[in-house]
Amino acid sequence: MTVTAPSISPQTRPAPAEAQGLVRVFAADQPLALDAGVNLAPISIAYSTYGSLNADRSNAILVCHALTGDQFPASTHPTTGKPGWWQLMVGPGLPIDTSRFFVICSNVIGGCMGSTGPSDINPATGLAYGSTFPVITIADMVRAQAMLIDSLGIERLFSVIGGSMGGMQVLQWASAFPDRVLTAVPLATAARHSAQNIAFHEVGRQAIMADPEWRDGAYQAAGTLPRKGLAVAHMAAHITYLSEAALHRKFGRNLQDREHLGFGFDADFQVESYLRHQGRNFVDRFDANSYLYITRAMDYFDLAGDHDGVLARAFTGTRTRFCIVSFTSDWLFPTRESRQIVHALNAAAANVSFVEIETDKGHDAFLLNEPEMFRVLSGFLTAAADQHGIARP
Amino acid sequence: MTVTAPSISPQTRPAPAEAQGLVRVFAADQPLALDAGVNLAPISIAYSTYGSLNADRSNAILVCHALTGDQFPASTHPTTGKPGWWQLMVGPGLPIDTSRFFVICSNVIGGCMGSTGPSDINPATGLAYGSTFPVITIADMVRAQAMLIDSLGIERLFSVIGGSMGGMQVLQWASAFPDRVLTAVPLATAARHSAQNIAFHEVGRQAIMADPEWRDGAYQAAGTLPRKGLAVAHMAAHITYLSEAALHRKFGRNLQDREHLGFGFDADFQVESYLRHQGRNFVDRFDANSYLYITRAMDYFDLAGDHDGVLARAFTGTRTRFCIVSFTSDWLFPTRESRQIVHALNAAAANVSFVEIETDKGHDAFLLNEPEMFRVLSGFLTAAADQHGIARP
Repeated sequence: MTVTAPSISPQTRPAPAEAQGLVRVFAADQPLALDAGVNLAPISIAYSTYGSLNADRSNAILVCHALTGDQFPASTHPTTGKPGWWQLMVGPGLPIDTSRFFVICSNVIGGCMGSTGPSDINPATGLAYGSTFPVITIADMVRAQAMLIDSLGIERLFSVIGGSMGGMQVLQWASAFPDRVLTAVPLATAARHSAQNIAFHEVGRQAIMADPEWRDGAYQAAGTLPRKGLAVAHMAAHITYLSEAALHRKFGRNLQDREHLGFGFDADFQVESYLRHQGRNFVDRFDANSYLYITRAMDYFDLAGDHDGVLARAFTGTRTRFCIVSFTSDWLFPTRESRQIVHALNAAAANVSFVEIETDKGHDAFLLNEPEMFRVLSGFLTAAADQHGIARP
Repeated sequence: MTVTAPSISPQTRPAPAEAQGLVRVFAADQPLALDAGVNLAPISIAYSTYGSLNADRSNAILVCHALTGDQFPASTHPTTGKPGWWQLMVGPGLPIDTSRFFVICSNVIGGCMGSTGPSDINPATGLAYGSTFPVITIADMVRAQAMLIDSLGIERLFSVIGGSMGGMQVLQWASAFPDRVLTAVPLATAARHSAQNIAFHEVGRQAIMADPEWRDGAYQAAGTLPRKGLAVAHMAAHITYLSEAALHRKFGRNLQDREHLGFGFDADFQVESYLRHQGRNFVDRFDANSYLYITRAMDYFDLAGDHDGVLARAFTGTRTRFCIVSFTSDWLFPTRESRQIVHALNAAAANVSFVEIETDKGHDAFLLNEPEMFRVLSGFLTAAADQHGIARP
């Protein structure tokens, strides 16, 4: 398996309705200035759009994806053929209503779905970047998105919305470009990555780098892939996306295709079989080096640290309206992380609403069927859109 | 590095005071009948003792070790030179008072510190067992301990005490040999391994088996070791032994030996450096196949499952006195697991006391300096020993 970009037809303007598998190329004279202190050029940003941009370009929503996400929230994944990862959230009549809003979602810089990342060819060498790709940050991802938004002729976003790492991008957008973000919806996220979360990421990275097929990151040149290491990394991470209660409810100690314990190391338990399946499938759609770089970007995220240790300073004078959502059983980005954001926004006299949703689905709840989340987002976006004169469909 | 048994001087009776690095060999005519349906023979059981057995043999306490523990709770580890893992708990004047009690601790069957395990030579082949070692269970570990206790001429144990997997053995002892266990102290444990815990173990096993140096378990014959896989397995597990609060308190987002982020994949953060260190050290003292077998034994543990799904039936008619301890920040074996044991014991009309100790140290709290735990155990053991006429020192 080789991770390949989806089939794309380069163009600089989205089609009026759905336009998926688009890519915007920024040439060598339009570099992305990275926090690492280097300019990355040329860069490609792969994206999809849903709905239509209105005449005064006021109805654009940027959806930011999470670590293992992509630019296809509401359309079929080109590799796996599976439905979009936010099919329940983005579409006509859904909370992010594509009959009212023009929705943009781009693959992050460092990713492996068409935006420039470590699996791309470094024009300076003619070889895949691999481990020579510069370390990127959440701020770099957001600057790249801003370049895309500029190129689409959009001055101000009606909303920036995302969960988990997507939520980090939302916070970074609101902090770095306050005048370009009318409303911001960070879900199941944090203003900085915790020690425990850094630790889990480090386990995943070590699993990848322990795989001899990783070959110091140059596996593409060797025509190989660190499949086993990436699968283990995803298995470990996947546990953190679920709650203990959800694992117990879904699997408990149920056996997989057997009546009795096998007294061996096959997958006796359904939960083992499920995890192995998750690991196997992940390596067919994700690049191991992108996993290293994107987890690192999350680890580095510390919005207070960027503002003298005072999170409120990240939002000084903001006029953006915030809607913050956390989930009771999310132990990866627990409610206390959202509360810290709320406290900081309060200290900055920002307009913020906060909802903690009762669920046993863990961190993944933001991707799942959570009617209260849908009601909250729908209400927030509808009211704000009405207030700002965005026509109802 | 090869995992070797400590230097031992075989004998069948402990010395009057401390006697460490002992081993009891059971010949082919004294096989251990395993739950897997096979007889394991010959077997060795490596153990240490502390204190002296009294004349009526009534003051013996069996201490059961956890997954990565050994038979040296109160003496220097022969490989690492580090203090015993329960140095704060076991000793003269300590809660498990070796001036009053005769303490026995044996390496579990399947282990790698001298008791028969996968790194030992299979006499039938002349090669290390490796993956041909039979899958063992907590009940098998306990049956092997009972053989050792028999060989020491001890009919009844004053107490069986252990945390985590050690606590599983305590529960199994009380259930399988109720007349041989006067008091039982299961700490930070559960009567069955949860889906989430099975999932974390499966990640660890997959990390080991993904290492090409594992060689289907026959790494000893190949003169190699799956070091990287075992290190990743331990890193993942180690996170689960700590609480998020403890990780935050100890490390937070502090950088390791640097002022600024390194924009690379070295250990920027102290928590990364700490985890890598834990992983590296672990492979110097633990055998990868033992890790597979012992985690499997924990996964298989389900005391209710062994009794028609009704945990109380595991303790029907018991006269053992129980002292159960859990820790507020232990998310691997949370308090609700201990409560299930308490409820079952109540339903069996057993004599049980239960304490949940407030701490931020997570699962590892049972190994650490927890004054309330020391007070609880000291009080429980002292009162029960007084009641049963065990002489005060």
